[in-house]
Amino acid sequence: MKKAVILLSGGLDSTTCLALARSEGYECYALSFDYGQKHNSELNAAKKISRQFNTKRHEIVTLSIGNLGGSALTDDNISVPDFNGSKEIPLTYVPARNTIMLSIALGWAEILDADNIYIGVSAVDYSGYPDCRPEYINAFREMANLATKKSIEGKPINIVTPLINLSKAETTKLGVSLGVDYSETVSCYKATDDGLACGKCDSCHLRKKGFEEANTPDPTRYI
Amino acid sequence: MKKAVILLSGGLDSTTCLALARSEGYECYALSFDYGQKHNSELNAAKKISRQFNTKRHEIVTLSIGNLGGSALTDDNISVPDFNGSKEIPLTYVPARNTIMLSIALGWAEILDADNIYIGVSAVDYSGYPDCRPEYINAFREMANLATKKSIEGKPINIVTPLINLSKAETTKLGVSLGVDYSETVSCYKATDDGLACGKCDSCHLRKKGFEEANTPDPTRYI
Repeated sequence: MKKAVILLSGGLDSTTCLALARSEGYECYALSFDYGQKHNSELNAAKKISRQFNTKRHEIVTLSIGNLGGSALTDDNISVPDFNGSKEIPLTYVPARNTIMLSIALGWAEILDADNIYIGVSAVDYSGYPDCRPEYINAFREMANLATKKSIEGKPINIVTPLINLSKAETTKLGVSLGVDYSETVSCYKATDDGLACGKCDSCHLRKKGFEEANTPDPTRYI
Repeated sequence: MKKAVILLSGGLDSTTCLALARSEGYECYALSFDYGQKHNSELNAAKKISRQFNTKRHEIVTLSIGNLGGSALTDDNISVPDFNGSKEIPLTYVPARNTIMLSIALGWAEILDADNIYIGVSAVDYSGYPDCRPEYINAFREMANLATKKSIEGKPINIVTPLINLSKAETTKLGVSLGVDYSETVSCYKATDDGLACGKCDSCHLRKKGFEEANTPDPTRYI
């Protein structure tokens, strides 16, 4: 059975990716990160979702990059801002986060002899993070093809980004068509320990907008 | 003062890089990883060396990739082999290790507003790891230039590989000329908790050969 590693934060996008990979016949290996994020309840969501989707394995890698600071998601001295419509890269940006996560996924994919890594980045309804753009993903692919023993042996590991050109509404519709129950997913940057969403941060804003534009009831549990 | 992040394993190459970065006038930020390596005493060496070189900060990032298995350096079920002259990529290869470490260095460099990351890879006297080759490093550079907010703002973070074309003997001579005391460095894949080297693994073989060819006394403490 062909294998895929799925980066699973426990949010709407990554859960949709997992549903898609499973629907495409992959044996799924879910990968999450405990990197010192304040909204740690996303990891509980990831665990539940991983069980729901009957993944072959769910690995939560501990990564002490929170000590390095530099982001509102990890640094107690920087508050998570509410959505404000600004075009600037917001304080919630975690330097090199997708690069770090994709790199660890690359290592695991090589160990598992998996051909694909799914990551739920989108360059449509997103916060402007540089490491969500197609040109970045393409450059990561090139690099990955030179980085591993598997690639040297002619078995490249592909980075699959099925949501990259989808709006949040389109992603939501895709997930609904695949039977995803979004009530268990946690997207909020300030989610409580019980997984309740603030309704105000960038991530909540994009998610709400997605359900609205998709004409789908929003199952998010707000504070 | 210009800043550099130096990937510091505590071995011969990374210590030479640190010495070089300091001699070039950088404020040095040393970065090491506790990734479940069996030869954990390299971290004690890294701490001592970091103090010797008076780095601005030394961060040891914990990274639980050892649980993923796949390498003789982290997996208790795979023994570290002695040097055998084979051209194959050895069991000590850790999938995507340099990619993972460079990625975390990239994040930290962005947080610190550092322009350079030093990594002591060599494509001359090396174990054939794919992620030590110039073509891999060049691809990582391209990707890094698209990955960060700093790069979008026109301030790219460079990956500096001063040893990439040097033999181990040339690296050793360079270090000696910079005043490096190699007796504190630990390169052995099977180093004891006290930092004693086995003298038989690939890493010991390359290091021994380096001191011999450089006509420099080998200060390594062997078992």
